Amino acid sequence: MTAFPFRIQATDGAARTGVLATPRGEIRTPAFMPVGTAGTVKALTVEQVAETGADILLGNTYHLMLRPTAERVARLGGLHKFMRWEKPILTDSGGFQVMSLTKIAKVTEEAVTFQSHLDGSRHALSPERSIEIQADLLGADIVMQLDELVALPATAERAAEAMRRSARWGERSKNAFGERDSQALFGIQQGGTDEALRRESAERLTGIGFDGYAIGGLAVGEGHAAMVEVLDYAPAMLPAERPRYLMGVGKPIDIVEAVARGVDMFDCVLPTRSGRHGQAWSWAGSINLKNARFAEDESPLDDTIPIPASRDYSKAYLHHLVKSEEILGQVLLSWHNLAFFQALMAELRAAIAEGRLAAFRRSFQARAQAASDSAA
Amino acid sequence: MTAFPFRIQATDGAARTGVLATPRGEIRTPAFMPVGTAGTVKALTVEQVAETGADILLGNTYHLMLRPTAERVARLGGLHKFMRWEKPILTDSGGFQVMSLTKIAKVTEEAVTFQSHLDGSRHALSPERSIEIQADLLGADIVMQLDELVALPATAERAAEAMRRSARWGERSKNAFGERDSQALFGIQQGGTDEALRRESAERLTGIGFDGYAIGGLAVGEGHAAMVEVLDYAPAMLPAERPRYLMGVGKPIDIVEAVARGVDMFDCVLPTRSGRHGQAWSWAGSINLKNARFAEDESPLDDTIPIPASRDYSKAYLHHLVKSEEILGQVLLSWHNLAFFQALMAELRAAIAEGRLAAFRRSFQARAQAASDSAA
Repeated sequence: MTAFPFRIQATDGAARTGVLATPRGEIRTPAFMPVGTAGTVKALTVEQVAETGADILLGNTYHLMLRPTAERVARLGGLHKFMRWEKPILTDSGGFQVMSLTKIAKVTEEAVTFQSHLDGSRHALSPERSIEIQADLLGADIVMQLDELVALPATAERAAEAMRRSARWGERSKNAFGERDSQALFGIQQGGTDEALRRESAERLTGIGFDGYAIGGLAVGEGHAAMVEVLDYAPAMLPAERPRYLMGVGKPIDIVEAVARGVDMFDCVLPTRSGRHGQAWSWAGSINLKNARFAEDESPLDDTIPIPASRDYSKAYLHHLVKSEEILGQVLLSWHNLAFFQALMAELRAAIAEGRLAAFRRSFQARAQAASDSAA
Repeated sequence: MTAFPFRIQATDGAARTGVLATPRGEIRTPAFMPVGTAGTVKALTVEQVAETGADILLGNTYHLMLRPTAERVARLGGLHKFMRWEKPILTDSGGFQVMSLTKIAKVTEEAVTFQSHLDGSRHALSPERSIEIQADLLGADIVMQLDELVALPATAERAAEAMRRSARWGERSKNAFGERDSQALFGIQQGGTDEALRRESAERLTGIGFDGYAIGGLAVGEGHAAMVEVLDYAPAMLPAERPRYLMGVGKPIDIVEAVARGVDMFDCVLPTRSGRHGQAWSWAGSINLKNARFAEDESPLDDTIPIPASRDYSKAYLHHLVKSEEILGQVLLSWHNLAFFQALMAELRAAIAEGRLAAFRRSFQARAQAASDSAA
């Protein structure tokens, strides 16, 4: 297997900063991947997304396999060409959305079968089919193995069962993926909040050998404290020389804590979803622009972030757009939030490179605490 | 009254092309003004609007006086600063929306009283209040007099009554506006589809003296044929040395016919509204991107228009966005449509300058006819 070179340039405690080099461009880590669910980062042009500094996007296999279908994307030249994003794309396996969006899902050792949330049509997703969709049809740069998720809290037995099935599916995924020069395959650690299961999962995955390792099952409502507890031990179980990706996380405070524990990659719908609902993220937490206190606030969201949405529009104007339910409000807040998340990642990378992550983390926590106090 | 200099650079039959010079920039005529109803051209950033080549926007007094209120816009530095559009803005008087959007409207000689469509609150709009809102509070570059509209068809008596009241309101508007160095006031010709009333209206308005003259009452559902019939005589009744503005029009074919009859300025929600509904305008009429025939069409909407929405995205991708009800579909189609309307105006200006408007018009009509035949 040809792994993408991953050069760790500096470490600070368990945290690392580096570059994952792909044929479509370098990914600076720690990296945040905006989510382009259905072939679009919601409400934004690819030019606007690129302006935020994103090095890589995430695409959703589940949504794309249903509409416009992976076969159609392939006939149109692949996902990059289809959506006009030339930098790297990571696709998920589809498993998470099948579990969370479809009502009827049957899981066997062979595959997951489910009904489309769009039209009720019946589909099956096996490890092999997921690889075919991601690697051959969509043409993703980074491909994820299909895994089985359990909702937390779960019994140890249920968590163990799903973890071992995920490992078996990981092996089938790798066999289906084979050897590729310009695409990478990531395995996914499962095991819930059980340290022994997380260790067993990591051992099984490293035995198979992947280009990168994801920490799965921690964006399913277990809360910040439980997540951090798992992150106290889980990243260190995964090979230090390969990228570690915490799937579906998260809030800025989650990202800061995960980076401090050795995680390199993140994705989350939070910045775009909350942007569509009038929320703006900042160093002092999030604010809701609908609040009347912004009605005549002439200050911008963040004049240190060099994009129009953050630097040039007043909060008063954004308040007006949100109150008036104007599409431009959704556009500008999604755009700003993505830019803020990228600014956060840049600050984290700089703090690690300069050996001052502990100080950054304390200051970040203090600002978040002060904001939460003043909001209370 | 200090009129903005209007330099007519070429004429071709009744058509003219020129430049209306304002302190905030030149307006190339014939000009199309995108509509920024509530302080935003729906779904687009001001940068995207500027990229289409628009020299001037239209803002709606009715919407802005209700939310965020004209007083608030004034406290925030005026409409240009509020929405970050530095080029000229024309505001309408508010009268048209009061008639079309509010259910309870009482019209007296003094003012129109109405209830807000947002919260039912009671408001009054007089000629003087409309001038105050537009010129003093919003800070528009071109201000429109308040007029009284009648729905067509109307009796000659009703049309005459509304026309004469509009003229009296025009005089009050001018008295309220006074003499201004950096803002212009336009009068509005009324008279329905009655040539004698249109002439009387024009004589009353020129007697008062305005910086420009609008042709009102022709975007209220009277149809293309009735509109063109009025345009056969109405523009020539208005002073040739001042800009003529056909309010609320229209489709590309309406614009071409009106330009040929001596109209210089247009505004319409059509490009943005139809863009939000999946429709794209082109030289061959409009197409609906939701149509399955575009599902694998890799061609762009128009590769001669140098903006991403027109030149870079495939119809297949736009079809996918429209089918998936993605905001980006509304953004890209609104953006393309505005760019197409600006391309149409540029073609019209060039055709007039080169004395080939008749040929352009024939060719435009033939393409529209061919498209309508093939769609039938």
